[in-house]
Amino acid sequence: MLFQPVGYPIIAKSSLNLSRKFKKDNMIKITLPDGAVREYEKGSSAMDIAKSISEGLAKKVLAASVNGKVTDLTMPIDTDSTLSLLTWDHAEAKNTFWHSSAHLMAEAVQSLYPHARFWVGPPVDKGFYYDIDFRDTKVTEEDLAELEKKMNEFAKQNNGFIRKMMPKDEAVAYFTEKGDPYKLDLLNNLNDGEISFYTQGSFTDLCRGPHIPSTGLIKAIKLTSIAGAYWKGDERNKQLTRIYGVTFPNQKEMDEHLLMLEEAKKRDHRKLGKELGIFTMDDMVGQGLPLWLPNGGIVIEELERLAKETEHAAGYKRVVTPHIAKEAMYLTSGHLPYYADSMFPPMELDGTKYYLRAMNCPHHHKVFDAEPKSYKDLPFRIAEYGTCYRYEQSGELFGLMRVRCLHMNDAHIYCSKEQFADEFRAVNEMYLKYFKIFGIDKYVMRLSLHEPSKRGQKYIDAPELWEQTENMVRNTLIESNIPFIEVQDEAAFYGPKIDVQIWSAIGREFTLATNQVDFNSGNKFKLSYTTKDNSTDVPLIIHRAPLGTHERFIGFLLEHFAGKFPTWLAPLQVKILPISDKFMEYATSTLEALKKAGVRVEIDDRNEKIGKKIRDTELMKVPYMLVIGEKEMNENKVSVRRQGKGDLGSVDLTAFIQDLCVEIAERSAE
Amino acid sequence: MLFQPVGYPIIAKSSLNLSRKFKKDNMIKITLPDGAVREYEKGSSAMDIAKSISEGLAKKVLAASVNGKVTDLTMPIDTDSTLSLLTWDHAEAKNTFWHSSAHLMAEAVQSLYPHARFWVGPPVDKGFYYDIDFRDTKVTEEDLAELEKKMNEFAKQNNGFIRKMMPKDEAVAYFTEKGDPYKLDLLNNLNDGEISFYTQGSFTDLCRGPHIPSTGLIKAIKLTSIAGAYWKGDERNKQLTRIYGVTFPNQKEMDEHLLMLEEAKKRDHRKLGKELGIFTMDDMVGQGLPLWLPNGGIVIEELERLAKETEHAAGYKRVVTPHIAKEAMYLTSGHLPYYADSMFPPMELDGTKYYLRAMNCPHHHKVFDAEPKSYKDLPFRIAEYGTCYRYEQSGELFGLMRVRCLHMNDAHIYCSKEQFADEFRAVNEMYLKYFKIFGIDKYVMRLSLHEPSKRGQKYIDAPELWEQTENMVRNTLIESNIPFIEVQDEAAFYGPKIDVQIWSAIGREFTLATNQVDFNSGNKFKLSYTTKDNSTDVPLIIHRAPLGTHERFIGFLLEHFAGKFPTWLAPLQVKILPISDKFMEYATSTLEALKKAGVRVEIDDRNEKIGKKIRDTELMKVPYMLVIGEKEMNENKVSVRRQGKGDLGSVDLTAFIQDLCVEIAERSAE
Repeated sequence: MLFQPVGYPIIAKSSLNLSRKFKKDNMIKITLPDGAVREYEKGSSAMDIAKSISEGLAKKVLAASVNGKVTDLTMPIDTDSTLSLLTWDHAEAKNTFWHSSAHLMAEAVQSLYPHARFWVGPPVDKGFYYDIDFRDTKVTEEDLAELEKKMNEFAKQNNGFIRKMMPKDEAVAYFTEKGDPYKLDLLNNLNDGEISFYTQGSFTDLCRGPHIPSTGLIKAIKLTSIAGAYWKGDERNKQLTRIYGVTFPNQKEMDEHLLMLEEAKKRDHRKLGKELGIFTMDDMVGQGLPLWLPNGGIVIEELERLAKETEHAAGYKRVVTPHIAKEAMYLTSGHLPYYADSMFPPMELDGTKYYLRAMNCPHHHKVFDAEPKSYKDLPFRIAEYGTCYRYEQSGELFGLMRVRCLHMNDAHIYCSKEQFADEFRAVNEMYLKYFKIFGIDKYVMRLSLHEPSKRGQKYIDAPELWEQTENMVRNTLIESNIPFIEVQDEAAFYGPKIDVQIWSAIGREFTLATNQVDFNSGNKFKLSYTTKDNSTDVPLIIHRAPLGTHERFIGFLLEHFAGKFPTWLAPLQVKILPISDKFMEYATSTLEALKKAGVRVEIDDRNEKIGKKIRDTELMKVPYMLVIGEKEMNENKVSVRRQGKGDLGSVDLTAFIQDLCVEIAERSAE
Repeated sequence: MLFQPVGYPIIAKSSLNLSRKFKKDNMIKITLPDGAVREYEKGSSAMDIAKSISEGLAKKVLAASVNGKVTDLTMPIDTDSTLSLLTWDHAEAKNTFWHSSAHLMAEAVQSLYPHARFWVGPPVDKGFYYDIDFRDTKVTEEDLAELEKKMNEFAKQNNGFIRKMMPKDEAVAYFTEKGDPYKLDLLNNLNDGEISFYTQGSFTDLCRGPHIPSTGLIKAIKLTSIAGAYWKGDERNKQLTRIYGVTFPNQKEMDEHLLMLEEAKKRDHRKLGKELGIFTMDDMVGQGLPLWLPNGGIVIEELERLAKETEHAAGYKRVVTPHIAKEAMYLTSGHLPYYADSMFPPMELDGTKYYLRAMNCPHHHKVFDAEPKSYKDLPFRIAEYGTCYRYEQSGELFGLMRVRCLHMNDAHIYCSKEQFADEFRAVNEMYLKYFKIFGIDKYVMRLSLHEPSKRGQKYIDAPELWEQTENMVRNTLIESNIPFIEVQDEAAFYGPKIDVQIWSAIGREFTLATNQVDFNSGNKFKLSYTTKDNSTDVPLIIHRAPLGTHERFIGFLLEHFAGKFPTWLAPLQVKILPISDKFMEYATSTLEALKKAGVRVEIDDRNEKIGKKIRDTELMKVPYMLVIGEKEMNENKVSVRRQGKGDLGSVDLTAFIQDLCVEIAERSAE
């Protein structure tokens, strides 16, 4: 989260200490994230400013965002600027930290393998890697411990990352002398004035930066894997060695991370998806196109029922629209030509190009437009579990997380400006309602705002609407007491948006869905409604998908619940285990009673020992097992074993069914 | 229905009368539809045979089917043959009747407009047309009565349709002399030996036939419309005049037909679909791609709920599969290249062709194949409201009846040969259950069989399986006492099928759905299961879709119910009409009580007279109106007006809600 100091005096006392002599025109105005404006001497660095705020902050801060651009903390600031001091909690700070860690690893490699040549070393989702040409030396997994040791040694030296600009000819001469074809290749695409080097300790690298202040901040180091990687990803090139690692500012976070990885491996949604018969992929169908098996079909059905009930209660109407449309539709929406790379290629029919849709909104706009609307029809809320198709490169595809077919919990709300705040708040509250149902305790909404200087290019040029809607969105988040962070320059073209980040039970982060304001499509599609005073106006549009896509959400749920779905979602809710054939009749009547109550139930009628029946049912993660023997039959009871809780003892059958039905109807997360 | 004489002696007495002297080797064997074999003198015609059976039949019979080919009744039969005598109830007989009627119309045209030239005059769905070049004469709607009169005159002459073969050069000379470019054009594509002429009265036409015996059978004549039609459908050619007509063997059927047409116009699903907010089409989306508006969304939702409940109770599991697949899938299924013209063109991605699916079966086969199956898993029944896309030429598209996007009530049953009969019977019973719910009283199942001589070409070469499955299908139909007709040479490539024909309340015929046996795809997709004795076998597959597609079925229902859906299906079930603002509070509490009971309900809160409120609600065909005034409020009652029944008087609110909920839960057709 951004560090947001609150309520500092406009000119901080500490800032006066930076220089005892200064003139007013030698000062710059620094605007902090909370809106406070403070004056500093021209040329002050973000680190200077951090120190002026508190020494504690200065020790934690890793990078700065100056006018929306992430930079070194040591960079002098010469003009009036907005400034965010980025600490570990901020994604950009993590990226900087891991990028610096890649340099630290390179330093260790250089000291152990002086002949090694370096290609690139970027941060990734969790950690970093560096692609290295070890030349004649073969480096394997066994060598990683030694490298880690060296990295720890260099980290303890607490060397600063020192930036130096260099003219291109000088840089070319430097790497030519060094005999480094990789960095020379990188220089090809760089011009004078944009070539910078970073040095820490004895290692120097061509690098755009930014970096953390010094290596001493890196307290916990783990090199996780080693693999081959073709230079530039082209298999005709030489294979380099890619070493992956992850680092943290303290050992506790490292321990948690490693535990989480171990747990995540057990909870891998691809593994569980197969074991539990949720989904499959098939080469004849195509990559990234999951086939949902019967058990997956049940989970989908339950999620859709929840969404339909929730949306019905919230005044949504359901529509059904085709998965294709003519090129003209996407030229109108603006998705073509800009978004074409993410869409499937067109099908040409009768001289017209048809596209598989990558989003449902244009079809919904057409539904709005099909019948004349007046202010009485607004807010007009239409929902559809609309299936979209997006082209993701095959290398990017990953289980249910990155797919080409998306079943989206989509809806669009068409409303007046006066109705907007209430509608937007109601959508946020729907998110919270869902989080509660699924036991999602940690979440944050990422409010993406536009960058005013890019209006007319990256953003639609409507300053007033931007101000209005951004304020409205911010205010609803504050009023609803929802944790959020603000990010500049990441809005949609047509309005501000909220990206919802959630964390699974084991602390992994997922981007679930977006909630977007759109004051542009109404104009593009010439949508209008008659106002109270009989004039016409263009509706504002809210795009929302609280449950995201079936693909990603079920992938998330598999990990979140470790495959142990709450009873209402479980494909099989109850398994009846008769101890022997003698009790089949009672088992069958129990089955019928449960079926009649709408419970998903089966009998294990195999000729197996009860111990084996219990173990096999546990593997399928069924919420309830009912063991049935002589005693149960005679007393019209069942012996209940609850998933995760063990033996609950003998219970009256009718009472059991009653309680179970309540648990299911309430969608209890227990 | 085919005329199926039952139990005649093998050599009919009457056939002996045809000729008093004959030798045994001068006889042919005629096999009738019921399997009875009778002997006739070589050269006997179908009419001779009809007469030998009964004079009544001979008067009714219109054409014959000899060895599966429809022919004139007068054609001599020289070899052992199978014979069906086609009466009016048979589609092929109707076609012949209407084709002959086109000739009758041409005779009338010729007598009134001797300079007219004739192009082609085929039968159509209901009736016939002829494309005519009237040259300098302008013929309009007003001239049709005169033509009709002339047709009636020639019909009464009861002229026979006389066939005559002609060598090509003679035919060319004939039309050259006549100066008829149209028939000369037709002759271009004909060869010696296949050129026949038909003459009735003073009119002779180049024609392949067959025809009915004589014009006197045409008792009721109506010319329905006149329009322009480019020669050969090409707008660069001359525009001819197309006259449409319809004829019947008696006036009663004509009257019924005209009444039905009038009623069908009022019930036009395109008109009702727009008025009731069911669906719309949009040019940017594309022709034949309906967008389902909120009211249509409700009907779809209710139909899907019915299907899901019914299928769940019948042991089906639900799956969800993508709308696309790779080319390899359709090469395996055999849809490519043969069915390519009916599919959307491919999308090429990463060097692979992807197709929008035109059927769900291959995806379901992949679901079957995703996990190993044993005999214990069979029958494996998987259902999906799968959306398919088919290419129909734009000229063929028609409202919801011919579309390019189909939401199909699909399912596939994988079973062993032993299970087949029970499964097939259960599917048929599901059809009947649905017919009852929707008040469909008239239906017939058309059993399409293969033609043994075409095995290995049009049909898979598996004589035993054909015999087994055709017998099983026939027997289940007989056992279930379902009306059916048998049609030779119309099976699917992979097995026999049943096409289900239903009639709407006004007597229009619709093809609803098919029920198919498939003993081929299992092999093609290498599907197998482990049998009881631990060997492997290939499952039989049943393809079924009792509710057809949403598109066609809802189109049918709109006509069938004239838009007055039964309450459970109605988008809006109850409208509350307060007599004035004074009763809004009670109206609102009534609304809430109904909503709580799950009823779809609205208040008409406009400041309008109650009469206007009632009239407007009637237009929207809402099943129930609740009128609320002083008396109702004071007594906690509602005045109920039932769609189609009028005022039902004042009813206690709680009792009304109770009865309504029962009506909805029972899906009462009332």
